[in-house]
Amino acid sequence: MESRVRAGEKLVEVPEAQDAALQFIGRIRTPWSERKDCPRQGRVDGPECRVEVFAPWREALLGVGEYAHLDLLYWLDRARRDLVVQNPGNDGQRYFGTFALRSPQRPNPIGLSRVRLERVEGDALIVRGLDCLDGTPLIDIKPVTCEFTPKAPPKG
Amino acid sequence: MESRVRAGEKLVEVPEAQDAALQFIGRIRTPWSERKDCPRQGRVDGPECRVEVFAPWREALLGVGEYAHLDLLYWLDRARRDLVVQNPGNDGQRYFGTFALRSPQRPNPIGLSRVRLERVEGDALIVRGLDCLDGTPLIDIKPVTCEFTPKAPPKG
Repeated sequence: MESRVRAGEKLVEVPEAQDAALQFIGRIRTPWSERKDCPRQGRVDGPECRVEVFAPWREALLGVGEYAHLDLLYWLDRARRDLVVQNPGNDGQRYFGTFALRSPQRPNPIGLSRVRLERVEGDALIVRGLDCLDGTPLIDIKPVTCEFTPKAPPKG
Repeated sequence: MESRVRAGEKLVEVPEAQDAALQFIGRIRTPWSERKDCPRQGRVDGPECRVEVFAPWREALLGVGEYAHLDLLYWLDRARRDLVVQNPGNDGQRYFGTFALRSPQRPNPIGLSRVRLERVEGDALIVRGLDCLDGTPLIDIKPVTCEFTPKAPPKG
């Protein structure tokens, strides 16, 4: 857990997280090896990143290549989890609740980016629009369907 | 875990999930108490739902009311986690990898909906656009900033 806390930011005592457990399903390769180099939010005109999927989940990529955009969920394993009020600009002026920010510091440090799928390369996806460190653990891949007719028919 | 598996769907042996742990930060109240009643995907013209935030996280709502749309993450605690290929229409015809679907059945059963924030009521958010069961555990709330100027200045 990163220890940095800025003046006026507010921490809470939180219970040990044990309500549900995650398994990492892959790993994300990006150009950024230090936090200071990561963009604040990903941009779809940003650099290509490589999303590597572990066995036994590779077969779950069947059909992903038909989508133009994906929602990726990943685990921000260096974030602290006890901040409730933050000062993202470190200016001592503007404070926001954690749920009014997309900061990595949050009770469940899950990152979410809506990315553009450039292509599928074997067991990996090449995407643009990420903002995370090289080596970040992958949690989920979801297709973005709102731009297209859903493949599955609606329930009767 | 729900046991239903359709003809031709494919399961894998998965290790016990223990790479990271989640804490539930609230609970979602919706009109749907059985899975068959849930919409396939939420619609922003759907019914109002109530997102209740637990102590000690209520102060983290500071500033959330300024956003028109939020990304909500929630835990689909009745989903099975070992399906890699699915037949969502149950027609024996069209099979998709789990990552080409937004089905609840996935290795990390996290639901994600982009919702419209109608109003804040004390420690709860009233939103439209959800698709989950009444009582679903809440994992995260993130503001959707792409429509607006981000509140935090970009890094220099």
